Amino acid sequence: MAAFTLHTTAATSPSSPAGTAILLRSRSRAYPLSTVRVSCSAAAAAAGKTVVIGLAADSGCGKSTFVRRLTSVLGGGTEAEPPRGGNPESNTLVSDAATVICLDDYHSLDRPGRKARGVTALDPRASDFDLMYEQVRAIKDGRAVEKPVYNHFTGLFDPPELITPPKILVLEGLHPMYDERVRDLLDFSIYLDISNEVKFAWKVQRDMAERGQSLESIKANIEARKPDFDAYVDPQKQYADAVIEVLPTQLIPDDGEGKVPRVRLIMMEGVEHFEPVYLFDEGSTVSWIPCGRKLSCSYPGIRFAYGFATYFGHEVSVVEMDGHFDKLDELIYVETHLSNLSAKFYGEVTQQMLTHAHLPGSNNGTGFFQTILGLKIRHLYEQVVAEAERAAMTAVDAAKPILEL
Amino acid sequence: MAAFTLHTTAATSPSSPAGTAILLRSRSRAYPLSTVRVSCSAAAAAAGKTVVIGLAADSGCGKSTFVRRLTSVLGGGTEAEPPRGGNPESNTLVSDAATVICLDDYHSLDRPGRKARGVTALDPRASDFDLMYEQVRAIKDGRAVEKPVYNHFTGLFDPPELITPPKILVLEGLHPMYDERVRDLLDFSIYLDISNEVKFAWKVQRDMAERGQSLESIKANIEARKPDFDAYVDPQKQYADAVIEVLPTQLIPDDGEGKVPRVRLIMMEGVEHFEPVYLFDEGSTVSWIPCGRKLSCSYPGIRFAYGFATYFGHEVSVVEMDGHFDKLDELIYVETHLSNLSAKFYGEVTQQMLTHAHLPGSNNGTGFFQTILGLKIRHLYEQVVAEAERAAMTAVDAAKPILEL
Repeated sequence: MAAFTLHTTAATSPSSPAGTAILLRSRSRAYPLSTVRVSCSAAAAAAGKTVVIGLAADSGCGKSTFVRRLTSVLGGGTEAEPPRGGNPESNTLVSDAATVICLDDYHSLDRPGRKARGVTALDPRASDFDLMYEQVRAIKDGRAVEKPVYNHFTGLFDPPELITPPKILVLEGLHPMYDERVRDLLDFSIYLDISNEVKFAWKVQRDMAERGQSLESIKANIEARKPDFDAYVDPQKQYADAVIEVLPTQLIPDDGEGKVPRVRLIMMEGVEHFEPVYLFDEGSTVSWIPCGRKLSCSYPGIRFAYGFATYFGHEVSVVEMDGHFDKLDELIYVETHLSNLSAKFYGEVTQQMLTHAHLPGSNNGTGFFQTILGLKIRHLYEQVVAEAERAAMTAVDAAKPILEL
Repeated sequence: MAAFTLHTTAATSPSSPAGTAILLRSRSRAYPLSTVRVSCSAAAAAAGKTVVIGLAADSGCGKSTFVRRLTSVLGGGTEAEPPRGGNPESNTLVSDAATVICLDDYHSLDRPGRKARGVTALDPRASDFDLMYEQVRAIKDGRAVEKPVYNHFTGLFDPPELITPPKILVLEGLHPMYDERVRDLLDFSIYLDISNEVKFAWKVQRDMAERGQSLESIKANIEARKPDFDAYVDPQKQYADAVIEVLPTQLIPDDGEGKVPRVRLIMMEGVEHFEPVYLFDEGSTVSWIPCGRKLSCSYPGIRFAYGFATYFGHEVSVVEMDGHFDKLDELIYVETHLSNLSAKFYGEVTQQMLTHAHLPGSNNGTGFFQTILGLKIRHLYEQVVAEAERAAMTAVDAAKPILEL
């Protein structure tokens, strides 16, 4: 994290007035003059192009875990951290390569406001998409912005923080693909699609075990969120370039525990700079139980499937993993048999999974596919940069006077 | 076939008296003095070791087609032919590398004899296993034999023919693995296991269409053969090193036609010089539908499966193909994705299949797996020879006086 410097002064960069203007035009709230500035010292980031990634999911569905894995891959092994010296309640994470902003920061209504109007955070009326669009647009154009900060503890807004254009900007939240203008700014979009059964099992595990909630209140909470979730969050998956779908296992008959997930990585075809991962034979239909003579797995084993399908009218490739990894052997064995992983060295997925062994999903398809998507996004970024560099070189060449005749 | 010369003289080779002796000891029939001699002019065959292959199946189950494919692979592209200038009713086929003898030649009872005793050809009492053993033993020891010739047209015995030790001796018939002594002489054994549904469909196709038999008589014939088949032929599959099992397709629901077969290549583990073929990942469980984005197939498509199982108490690997090939594209695509084929060049299986495109099963798993087993047998032969040569070299080295000290 040494590459990052933090300034708690009034923004002085040439781009900040524009950001402030955007902020003030869309908001009626008053902002203090002193803002937190997050700037990346890597010259390349300032000069380069910002690649924008959308990451959509319901709350409690693994966005923050995904962000940890993603920034770890993108940042070369270092983990993303909240802006140093900034607001400790900031939702932003920064690493060498990426800045992750939480779209809750674009709430147009704070918690009392939502309560007063009877609007949930899932309802787009609680978000300021104009501001979201303008600020993402500004960052993509290379300008810093003063982004609002929603404080999840108080339910109110804290002073805004300055975001300078990173190499990769990740927009994580409920609605990164809801607004068409914002959606069009995304270079790649991901939707985490957790089935109701698994979502319930996860919430029970987290909210009942860790927060002492009753089963009934968890159920009631899920039910209360469902209509808005179905209306405003879930439909975004049709716009995703990749979907991680988490379903109950099929390895254990009538499994009610939801501890063993069946995870599907759904990858849109024809996305620029994104070559779908495949198993054995690209474009065919495969099912694979790696456990056998060479690999022994504990109950209920692991089953992979690969094939293609139509997803909201798009051609997609799907890699599915049912079951969980028990040992490193299993993980590296599986990684070896997948193709188009965009890894930089043999066993990189396994190494990443081991580095984050403590994170949820490290022994199943959620962590595995999150890590793989991290590699794919890094590859996409590198290709976008290489393309921009080639375009710049071509422009320079075209501008040269023709001397050799 | 230029390498073969044919002598219609009394046998004069040093090994023929032994063969004759064996023949006379086990038979009470009178043999004419003039016999047909089939000898291979390739010096290597005479000096080398004869590898003996057993090929068991019911009649009308594709043994002769398999033999055509097998000798084609073994003989380097040339087809095996009946002994030139010999008995035109001979059941023997010879090629550069292999001699195929039909075990019907070891009938102890001719057709009238079987009829008189109420014994079918499936009944071991109709075969002379002592003679079969002694002659195969003799060939394996490098001695020529005078093998009886059963004439399938007359149902009687013709004069015997002399068989000199070939590189590879194929014993095809109803009982190559029935007698324990003969079984022990086999370097590799194959059983063609045709399910009743498919056997019926094939017999209808052949006997009704080509021979004008009624459906009832075909059914009656199959039923009549069944008890002896079940008692004496079918149990041999437990001793086979490889089984080609032909079942009704699962691609077409309630398919009654039997035109699309589901074929399983069952390969015993731990057989010397025989490495089972596998799909994608050795020792795992795979299903694969190659037809998709890269390969388009006509209805009902092709489905492969690979896995391992227990077969009569033995560990086996199984590769299964359901469906049929429609075009060369499909065949070469599938070949490319199988491993351990023992091919000598890219596309050899496909080339062989095309060479014999007119043979039954050339568009499905029967022809495909027969061809593959041909390659495996060739590989096994080469390994046996190489091993014998190494052993001979070691013996020579051991006999040398130690001069360097």
